[in-house]
Amino acid sequence: MISFQCDYLAGAHPLILQRMLDTNGEDTPGYGCDSYCDSARKKIREACGAPDADVHFLVGGTQTNTTVISAVLRPYQGVIAAQEGHIACHETGAIEATGHKVLTLPSSDGKITARQVATLLEEDRLCSTREHMVQPGMVYLSFPTESGALYSKAELTELFSVCRSAGIPLYLDGARLGYGLASKACDLTLPELAQLCDVFYIGGTKCGALFGEAVVIRNEAIKRDFRYLIKRHGGMLAKGRLLGIQFDVLFEDGLYFSICRQAVEQALEIRQAFEQRGIAMFGSSQTNQQFPILSDRQLAFLNERYRSEFWCKTDGGSVVRFCTSWSTRPQDVAALIGDIGRLPATD
Amino acid sequence: MISFQCDYLAGAHPLILQRMLDTNGEDTPGYGCDSYCDSARKKIREACGAPDADVHFLVGGTQTNTTVISAVLRPYQGVIAAQEGHIACHETGAIEATGHKVLTLPSSDGKITARQVATLLEEDRLCSTREHMVQPGMVYLSFPTESGALYSKAELTELFSVCRSAGIPLYLDGARLGYGLASKACDLTLPELAQLCDVFYIGGTKCGALFGEAVVIRNEAIKRDFRYLIKRHGGMLAKGRLLGIQFDVLFEDGLYFSICRQAVEQALEIRQAFEQRGIAMFGSSQTNQQFPILSDRQLAFLNERYRSEFWCKTDGGSVVRFCTSWSTRPQDVAALIGDIGRLPATD
Amino acid sequence: MISFQCDYLAGAHPLILQRMLDTNGEDTPGYGCDSYCDSARKKIREACGAPDADVHFLVGGTQTNTTVISAVLRPYQGVIAAQEGHIACHETGAIEATGHKVLTLPSSDGKITARQVATLLEEDRLCSTREHMVQPGMVYLSFPTESGALYSKAELTELFSVCRSAGIPLYLDGARLGYGLASKACDLTLPELAQLCDVFYIGGTKCGALFGEAVVIRNEAIKRDFRYLIKRHGGMLAKGRLLGIQFDVLFEDGLYFSICRQAVEQALEIRQAFEQRGIAMFGSSQTNQQFPILSDRQLAFLNERYRSEFWCKTDGGSVVRFCTSWSTRPQDVAALIGDIGRLPATD
Amino acid sequence: MISFQCDYLAGAHPLILQRMLDTNGEDTPGYGCDSYCDSARKKIREACGAPDADVHFLVGGTQTNTTVISAVLRPYQGVIAAQEGHIACHETGAIEATGHKVLTLPSSDGKITARQVATLLEEDRLCSTREHMVQPGMVYLSFPTESGALYSKAELTELFSVCRSAGIPLYLDGARLGYGLASKACDLTLPELAQLCDVFYIGGTKCGALFGEAVVIRNEAIKRDFRYLIKRHGGMLAKGRLLGIQFDVLFEDGLYFSICRQAVEQALEIRQAFEQRGIAMFGSSQTNQQFPILSDRQLAFLNERYRSEFWCKTDGGSVVRFCTSWSTRPQDVAALIGDIGRLPATD
Repeated sequence: MISFQCDYLAGAHPLILQRMLDTNGEDTPGYGCDSYCDSARKKIREACGAPDADVHFLVGGTQTNTTVISAVLRPYQGVIAAQEGHIACHETGAIEATGHKVLTLPSSDGKITARQVATLLEEDRLCSTREHMVQPGMVYLSFPTESGALYSKAELTELFSVCRSAGIPLYLDGARLGYGLASKACDLTLPELAQLCDVFYIGGTKCGALFGEAVVIRNEAIKRDFRYLIKRHGGMLAKGRLLGIQFDVLFEDGLYFSICRQAVEQALEIRQAFEQRGIAMFGSSQTNQQFPILSDRQLAFLNERYRSEFWCKTDGGSVVRFCTSWSTRPQDVAALIGDIGRLPATD
Repeated sequence: MISFQCDYLAGAHPLILQRMLDTNGEDTPGYGCDSYCDSARKKIREACGAPDADVHFLVGGTQTNTTVISAVLRPYQGVIAAQEGHIACHETGAIEATGHKVLTLPSSDGKITARQVATLLEEDRLCSTREHMVQPGMVYLSFPTESGALYSKAELTELFSVCRSAGIPLYLDGARLGYGLASKACDLTLPELAQLCDVFYIGGTKCGALFGEAVVIRNEAIKRDFRYLIKRHGGMLAKGRLLGIQFDVLFEDGLYFSICRQAVEQALEIRQAFEQRGIAMFGSSQTNQQFPILSDRQLAFLNERYRSEFWCKTDGGSVVRFCTSWSTRPQDVAALIGDIGRLPATD
Repeated sequence: MISFQCDYLAGAHPLILQRMLDTNGEDTPGYGCDSYCDSARKKIREACGAPDADVHFLVGGTQTNTTVISAVLRPYQGVIAAQEGHIACHETGAIEATGHKVLTLPSSDGKITARQVATLLEEDRLCSTREHMVQPGMVYLSFPTESGALYSKAELTELFSVCRSAGIPLYLDGARLGYGLASKACDLTLPELAQLCDVFYIGGTKCGALFGEAVVIRNEAIKRDFRYLIKRHGGMLAKGRLLGIQFDVLFEDGLYFSICRQAVEQALEIRQAFEQRGIAMFGSSQTNQQFPILSDRQLAFLNERYRSEFWCKTDGGSVVRFCTSWSTRPQDVAALIGDIGRLPATD
Repeated sequence: MISFQCDYLAGAHPLILQRMLDTNGEDTPGYGCDSYCDSARKKIREACGAPDADVHFLVGGTQTNTTVISAVLRPYQGVIAAQEGHIACHETGAIEATGHKVLTLPSSDGKITARQVATLLEEDRLCSTREHMVQPGMVYLSFPTESGALYSKAELTELFSVCRSAGIPLYLDGARLGYGLASKACDLTLPELAQLCDVFYIGGTKCGALFGEAVVIRNEAIKRDFRYLIKRHGGMLAKGRLLGIQFDVLFEDGLYFSICRQAVEQALEIRQAFEQRGIAMFGSSQTNQQFPILSDRQLAFLNERYRSEFWCKTDGGSVVRFCTSWSTRPQDVAALIGDIGRLPATD
C-alpha cells in the first residue's frame, strides 16, 4: 500500500534527523534557552523580515493555538474563526478549556472575508445587549485553510485592516504555511504575510519536522510573558533544543521552502491527473492537499493500492483527501497518476 | 409611558414582599439551611410529583445554567442547544468560562428536535476523529423558548428518549416555566415535565419573585455535592432564606400558576388584537411574550405611549416584543388593545 | 435562644425593606441601569471622595471576589493573600475556577505586611526559574480580616506603596468594611481607604442589607468592560434596582455607618464583659466579631441560652465567635453580659 | 566545563536515536495508534505486571500532570500534594488552569505521610462549613521526590490504604521513576508500585528519552475517554510513534533500568566523595540527584570546572544540585570526585 493519507505519517527530513544525531551528546540549557534555538530564531526573523519579532517554539498545533489565543484575549472575549477552522472543530475544546468561545462564521472553503468580520463587529457594536454576549477579541485564520484554500495579498490586507480599525489582533495558523507560500497560486511572500498579521505560526510537524511549530509575534502586547503561558499550557519542552535544531535546519538554505515546493508540485500533478480523467475536485486547492470527488467504484479501485483519507460525503460521491509531503516518492506519484488514468468512469 | 418591555421590570408579587417583611427580624441559619427553604423544597417536590428530587435555590438564571451544566459534564464534553438558546448567545460566555463548548443546532423558534439530536449523536459516534472533537454530553432545552415556543408532551418524550438511549442527561431551562405550563397550548403538567428530564429549573425572577430560580434534580448522579458547585460559582446566598421564602409563597395555593396564567391571558388578548388588526406575528407564541411585526409608522405610533423591546429586523418590518407579567395592569392591557385597533395600516 | 452566631442571620434594616416596598410596583430598566443604582453610585462616590470611581453592584462576596480578581489578573498570574483570607479557604475554589492560584502568606490574625509582600515579590524577581512559577499579579486584603483585625493607615499606606512600586493592583475585600471604619481603633476614613487601594468593595450583606456588595474601582485599567465580567460570572441581577435601592438607603444620612457603629459598640461591651470575667480573647478585634476562648464548661453554660459559632480549638479551650449586627437587640446584649458575669471559672 | 546541572541536558540514549533513524521513512497512523506504541504499551504492561492497565504516551511532565489530574477530579475538588511538589510550585499554575486547587501539606523532603493525609481528610469530614472549602479529591506523590527522597513499600502501602478508605485516587508522578526503582534504598519493584496506586507515570524525558512520559492507568474510572483529555490539553503528538519508539526501546532488555542504575551508582559515588570530604548533604537522596551544602569558597572552587544547579540557601551555605544521567561519562565523575577531595575546608 502506498499512502497519501496525510502529511505527518513519516518521520523528519533526513537532514533534520542527521543534525539531531550529530548533536545528541551535547549538553545545552533546557527550555529553549540554548544556542540552537537562538540560531533558529535569528534565521526565522530574517526569513520574515521582522527583526523585532519574538519567536517561540512549541511542540504541536493545538497547544500553539491555545497558548496564543489565551495570550491575546481577556476572559469574556472570543475568537472569530471559520466554521471549518481547526480551533472550531478539531481540538476537543482546547480553546473553550481556556474559557473562550469560538465565534464562527460560515464558509465553504475555510476562508472568511473582511466583510464578514466587519459585519460581525458592527453588529456587536450596535447591539443593545452586547454586555450579555461574548465580545469578539481577535480573528483566527488558517493559511492555507484545512481544505487547502489560500488568502490573496489583497484579501489578507483587507482583513488586517478591519482588525486594525477595530483594535483586535489578527492571528494566522500556519500549520501548513510552507505549502501555502510554496504554491504558485500564492501572491504573498513570508515577509509580506508577517506584516499582515499580529502573530502567526510556522508549522513544522506537517512540513518536514518530527514535530514543532514556531510562533512569530510582532504585536508588542502579545509578547508579554509569553513563556509563562507556554509553560502553563504544558508546551515548554525540557530538551528545548530539539525544536531549535529542527527549525535551524529547516531555515538553512531554504530547506523549508524546497520541501514544501516539491510536495505542492507533486500534489498538482495528481490534481491534473484527476481533472484530465474527468473527476470533479472539491475546492480549488493549489497546495499539498487534493480532494477528488469519487464514486464508490472509483474509490474501491484506488483503495486497492493507495491509502487516502475520507473527508465528507457530497452529492457526487465521496470527497477524499490525497496528501503529499517531504516523504512522498516520485515513483509513488507516478504510479498513482497512472492508476488515475485507468479509473472506471463516473456513472 | 406604559411598559410591556419585559417581565422583570417591577419588584415581586405583593404576597412575597409581605412575607419578607413579616419574617425580617427572625434569625435563621444561612446558605439555604433554614426552615423556609425546607418548606419550599417540600412544596416544590409535591408540585412536581417527585418526592426524591433534590431542590436547590439560586439567585439568577446564568448562574443556574453554569452550575447545572458544570455539574453534569466532564471537561471535554459540550452541551447541545439551539442556536438561539440563552446559554449559546446571552450569557457572556459563562458556559465557556467553565470550559465547555455549546454545540448549537439550527432552529427558527428556539426549539430543537429529537431527530436533530439523534443525528448529531450518530454523526459523532461514527466519526473516525471524534477524539479530536468535543463530545456531546448533555442536551439543553428552554421551555418556553426565548421566543415563546413550547415543546409538546410527545416532543419532549421523544427528546428524553433519545437522551436516555445515548446515556446523556436532558436539562430544561425553565426561566419562564410558569408561563409555559399556564398556556392553553401546553399539554404537559409539571409532574409530567419533571418525569421527562434529568434536571430542570423553575424560574422565579421572571414569574413574580424578586429573584431566584429553583433547580430540581431527579438524576442521582447530578445530585452529588451540588452545593459545592453552587458555592464555587458564587450562587450560594448568605441569607438563603430569602429564596426559600419567595418559593414558599409562590408554591402556596398555586400562586405561581395563577400569576402566570393571568399574564398569559393578557398576552393572548394582545396577540388577538394584533391579529385582528391584520398585523403579522413572529412565531406562534402562546405564552406571555408576543412578537408583532410592525412597520416604522406603526412602531412610532405605539412608541408614543408604550414601551416594548426591539427583537430583530425581518422582511416585513421590525419584530418587537410585548411582555406581560404579574405586574401588568388590566387597564394598561385594555389601553394597548384600544390603540392596536387604531394602528395605521401596514403599507 | 438568643443568637450571636453571625451577622447575616436576620433580614435587612427596616428602612431598606420599607424602600423596597414603596418602589415595588415601579417599572425600571434591568441589570443595574436604573435610577436607583445611579443614585446609589453617586452617593458612594461622594462618600469615598472618589468622583471618577466606577461603582458596580453584585449580589454576594464570593461572586465579587471572583469577578474582581479575574478582571485584574492575566492567566498565569496569582493573587497574594493571607492564609486565612476568605479567597484562600472559604470559597470552594472559586478563584481557582477562574484559573488563578492564591499565593498565601502566613498570618496569625489574617493580616499580611508590606514586608511580607515585598519579600515575596523580590524572591520572585530573583528566581531563575520564575517562568515555571505563578507570577504574583495583585494583592488581596480583608478589612477587617476574617477574625476582626484592622490595618492602620500607616500599614495600608506601606502596602499600597509596595504594590505601586511593583506595578500590581491592591484589592481590599470589605465584606465587613462598615464595622472596620466604625471602630474606634480605626484611624482610616473611607476616602483615605479609597485612596490607598486600586479597587475595593463595600459589603452590604453583613452590614444591614438583604444582600449586595458595592465594588468601587479607582484604577482605570480595571474599569474596562467590567460589566461583561459581572455577567459572565453570573453576578448581574436582572432586577438590578434591588441592589441600587439598598445601597441608596444605606448611604443616605450615614445609615451604613450608624448601623455598624452600634453593632461595634455592642460587641465591645461584650468583649469587656469577657475580659472582666478573666476570659482570654483570641485576637484583639475592635470590630463586631469577638472571639473568647472558653472551657467546655463555660461553653456549655452559655450554650443554654445563646447561639455562637465554633471557630477553632486552641490550647486554652475553644475559640468561639460572638457577632453583632443591625438586628442585635440591646436587651439581648445585656442578658449576655449578665450571664458572662456568672460564667464558671476557667479551671 | 563539565555539567552535572540536570538530567535533561543531552539528547537521548543512542539506541533510541538509532531506532528513530531506522524507522524514519516508514508511514504509520498518527496520534499514538501505530504499532510501535502498541508494542511499547505491551512491554510496559508486562513490566508493571498490570495486564489490564491502560497506557498512554504524552510529551512532557506538566502536560501529563494536568491531564491526569483533570481526568480524576470533579470541578470543586483539589489535589493533595507536598508543598514542594512539582504541581504545587513549578508548573506556572497549570493545575489551577484546569480549575483545581493544590492542597499542600508541609514536608521537608517532598514526602507526605499517610497520617498527614488521613488528618486532612478527617478535618475536612468534620468541618461544618466544608461545602465552602475545596474538597480533597486525590493525592499526588512524586517518586522520587523533587529532592530525591523515596517512599518505602510500607509507606506507600499505608498511603494507598488511606486513599482507598476515603475513596480518592492516588497518583504517583514518576518523572524520575527509573532512578527511584534503580536505587538500592528502594524496596519496591515496579509491579508492586503499580499495585499501590491508581495511576502513575513512567518518566522518559529525564531517564534517557528525547522526551515522553508513559501514563499507566489501573483504576477503571480514570480510563474513560482519556484520549479526549490528552488532545484537549495539547498533549496528543501527531507523529505519535515517536513516543512509542522511545518507550519500546527503553523497555527492551531492561534498558530503562540499566540507564538509571548506572546514573544512580555514579551519583552515590559523588555523594560518598562529598561525605568523605566532610561536606554535609541536604536530604538523604539515594537517587541520581545529590545536594551538598557548600560554602562560597567551596562552590567557587567547583564552579571553575563543573556546572551544578543552585537549589536554595541554608544555614551552612548553599545547597547545590549535582545530577547524573544516561549521558554522564565515567571520566567526568572521576574528575569531579578527585576535585571534591581537593575542596577547601568548610570554615
